[in-house]
Amino acid sequence: MIATEYIEFETAGNGHMVDITGEVSMVVEGSGISSGSVVLFVPGATGALTTIEYEPGLVEDMLEALERLAPAAAEYAHDRRWRDGNGHSHIRASLLGPSLTVPFIDGRLALGSWQQIVFLDMDNKPRHRRLVAQIMGE
Amino acid sequence: MIATEYIEFETAGNGHMVDITGEVSMVVEGSGISSGSVVLFVPGATGALTTIEYEPGLVEDMLEALERLAPAAAEYAHDRRWRDGNGHSHIRASLLGPSLTVPFIDGRLALGSWQQIVFLDMDNKPRHRRLVAQIMGE
Amino acid sequence: MIATEYIEFETAGNGHMVDITGEVSMVVEGSGISSGSVVLFVPGATGALTTIEYEPGLVEDMLEALERLAPAAAEYAHDRRWRDGNGHSHIRASLLGPSLTVPFIDGRLALGSWQQIVFLDMDNKPRHRRLVAQIMGE
Repeated sequence: MIATEYIEFETAGNGHMVDITGEVSMVVEGSGISSGSVVLFVPGATGALTTIEYEPGLVEDMLEALERLAPAAAEYAHDRRWRDGNGHSHIRASLLGPSLTVPFIDGRLALGSWQQIVFLDMDNKPRHRRLVAQIMGE
Repeated sequence: MIATEYIEFETAGNGHMVDITGEVSMVVEGSGISSGSVVLFVPGATGALTTIEYEPGLVEDMLEALERLAPAAAEYAHDRRWRDGNGHSHIRASLLGPSLTVPFIDGRLALGSWQQIVFLDMDNKPRHRRLVAQIMGE
Repeated sequence: MIATEYIEFETAGNGHMVDITGEVSMVVEGSGISSGSVVLFVPGATGALTTIEYEPGLVEDMLEALERLAPAAAEYAHDRRWRDGNGHSHIRASLLGPSLTVPFIDGRLALGSWQQIVFLDMDNKPRHRRLVAQIMGE
């Protein structure tokens, strides 16, 4: 069995970390599939998915880590070419990756107690985002 | 067909890299599913999964790379807030990611000859770990 | 339903980024499966998969980002031991990861308009590559 759903929300851009655990749980429950995995995917090149303990300290620390990975103030060939100023957004998103697969058992996501599923908007401006959540199982 | 199994082990923490290839092979064989993929997932926010040529040189090199990604001695807002000293552990785990999907064909993992599946314990103390291994296929 | 296919090509090594979106679309269409996900996997420890806006600026920017992650000129214990000079290749590949899962709906990959699937060859020499593409769905 397979079900394809979408999760939509607004972001502030600039590394905004959005906790989507509740939305993912809901689409899994709504699918009526009891055990399997949900494939989450960002259709777009400036967003990424991972898990984290979602609390204000780590939200701040992640922004600093992204600055180390791809500094916003560095020179990017992408920006020289296209003048949209988001070369660092693309590099950060590609390094973290656009897909995350999370198993669920008896309708419950197999997450740790202090582990949330988050979307990171790396783009340099607010965005409307629409993620794909594909549930496969039995 | 789908089967959900668990892989359990102890770690030393602090970037300890554990080769779990043998365990993953065993749960795949034990499932009786001949072709498909195994979704591996860390339920917890301070562990990560990837593949590597598992040999002592790269084990050492990976520790240095993790130090570059998120230095243990840097200041973390997480640590100022919670005083558990593992802000770097969380950031490292989130950047690498908690899930890995490996296809298998005729019961054999589609790995290269010098490629192993490893769990990295980023936490700052020894841990008991229990990973989810979900096998889907036919 | 499940189908396992292979995508083969030559690379120049040294961070060569190869756009494989067309090939992935073709194996998905050829499978006859209309909705599901394709699991892409690199059997080998010096290649990685991600998505990016594939244009010359970001190809150049990614090379610089990989240099920051694991400088080619740094000292690697792997190289002291094995003398193959590709310690940085291994570390870069492990940090980015060997697997990527992309959903498709009605036979079309759920990618953004400016998002391509790319293979990064981190090895320090030209390579022949053969990726696994496993299509699951209905």
